[in-house]
Amino acid sequence: MELPSLKDRENFLEHALRFVDGTRQVIFERWKAGLHPELKGDKSLVTEADLEAELFIRDAVARHFPGHGVIGEEHPNTHPESEFQWVVDPIDGTQNFVHGVPTFGTILGVHFRGVPIVGVIDHPALDIRLWGAKEFGVWKNGERVTIVDSKSAGLDINEIVATSTRGMFERTSEGPLLDRFMKTHGATRIYYDVFGHTMAVCGNVGALVEFNVRIWDLAAAPLLVEEAGGKCLEVRRTEVPGKAPLISVIMGKPSVVDVLAPHFQKE
Amino acid sequence: MELPSLKDRENFLEHALRFVDGTRQVIFERWKAGLHPELKGDKSLVTEADLEAELFIRDAVARHFPGHGVIGEEHPNTHPESEFQWVVDPIDGTQNFVHGVPTFGTILGVHFRGVPIVGVIDHPALDIRLWGAKEFGVWKNGERVTIVDSKSAGLDINEIVATSTRGMFERTSEGPLLDRFMKTHGATRIYYDVFGHTMAVCGNVGALVEFNVRIWDLAAAPLLVEEAGGKCLEVRRTEVPGKAPLISVIMGKPSVVDVLAPHFQKE
Repeated sequence: MELPSLKDRENFLEHALRFVDGTRQVIFERWKAGLHPELKGDKSLVTEADLEAELFIRDAVARHFPGHGVIGEEHPNTHPESEFQWVVDPIDGTQNFVHGVPTFGTILGVHFRGVPIVGVIDHPALDIRLWGAKEFGVWKNGERVTIVDSKSAGLDINEIVATSTRGMFERTSEGPLLDRFMKTHGATRIYYDVFGHTMAVCGNVGALVEFNVRIWDLAAAPLLVEEAGGKCLEVRRTEVPGKAPLISVIMGKPSVVDVLAPHFQKE
Repeated sequence: MELPSLKDRENFLEHALRFVDGTRQVIFERWKAGLHPELKGDKSLVTEADLEAELFIRDAVARHFPGHGVIGEEHPNTHPESEFQWVVDPIDGTQNFVHGVPTFGTILGVHFRGVPIVGVIDHPALDIRLWGAKEFGVWKNGERVTIVDSKSAGLDINEIVATSTRGMFERTSEGPLLDRFMKTHGATRIYYDVFGHTMAVCGNVGALVEFNVRIWDLAAAPLLVEEAGGKCLEVRRTEVPGKAPLISVIMGKPSVVDVLAPHFQKE
């Protein structure tokens, strides 16, 4: 499949960065004004900031790329027939955002016929932004990001592994899978938002096991990890009637992903 | 017991803040120069930055408060007979520090006859600093910090709980205790360094369960949590021959600490 030209991808990336300048402003303004979180059907939280930041992206895409589709966490899909889809999680980690844990962030990607070609992750409170495009490399606040693979055979005791929460594993009744893994690697962290993606893209963690998440959660990180020289391996995809499928990936340093994969393969 | 005067406590605090300006500089310089981590006896990592940052504190205490004791993670205690002890973990989260995860930090406290009277937590890479003293309140980068208690009866599903890693529970063969707790609160995070302390002091997490750590890990956070209006409850203390005892605490919003306590009491 021929991808859009590098010039086109750079154009999408430039727009994505401008769009995320906008969501950062929306998020800060709403934060300052005071949040009124509400419970969604799945008992997760949503705020005015989530809803408005996603609408900001939707308006921006409609104005600059009319006809392109948008897939987002908080509003219905538009133009599902388009080969270009902007995929957005306006605030990944709303529970953290509401409580002032600064690790939350905005995830935005452009997918062409299902292939991610542009990705941006923005942490407003940490002032960290990652961006990249297919065959363009990855940048963190303006500096090139490269993942250096682990040289260790097996999982080095001081390699950092992060995973989703146990609650995410429980979505497919696989909590015991996490329990078993934590017994083998006792220093496992659980960050529970896009902070883990950023750590994986930058090679700070050996690998992140992101379990039972949805397409908007993975709009950017898999592309960014691969563009930085890492590996993203899908280990599970579960169809959910009437909803987006649950996707599980391991991403990070190639050799660490390979060492972890057998632990998380479907039995 | 009569504590040193507020004026004296403020004087210790001012010095502690100056000392931590120094450790921040040592840590950045060593980071830029490139780290050469080594494995300690317990297989945890230590770097030149840990060792030098602690020596910096030791020299500063010896110069400004000759006769005061210093208890630190990386070097032998001095002046154990003094009623004033400066307690320091120069880099809490060395594994994170070595890998570039920015949540690591310096912990410094002044204890008078075993009672914490001054506490500082410094995150060089996040540019976050917390400080406080007994009956003086807590400050984060210059703004007063106050913990607002949860109004929920029981543990609200969207209250954030963070714990130590399973490996810390395993130090006293209590890994299954964490497994059981994670089944009851599936969104539990595991941060694995002083970042969790900072989140507890600022009321960002409902509570942090810090399990089987040592006195230098707890040099500052319990005082800061209480001074911010929170609660710190010791749930376990295990003597270890020839070493500092292992201490377990729950700290954060008072009602959340109380709700969690029965899960982590000794059986």
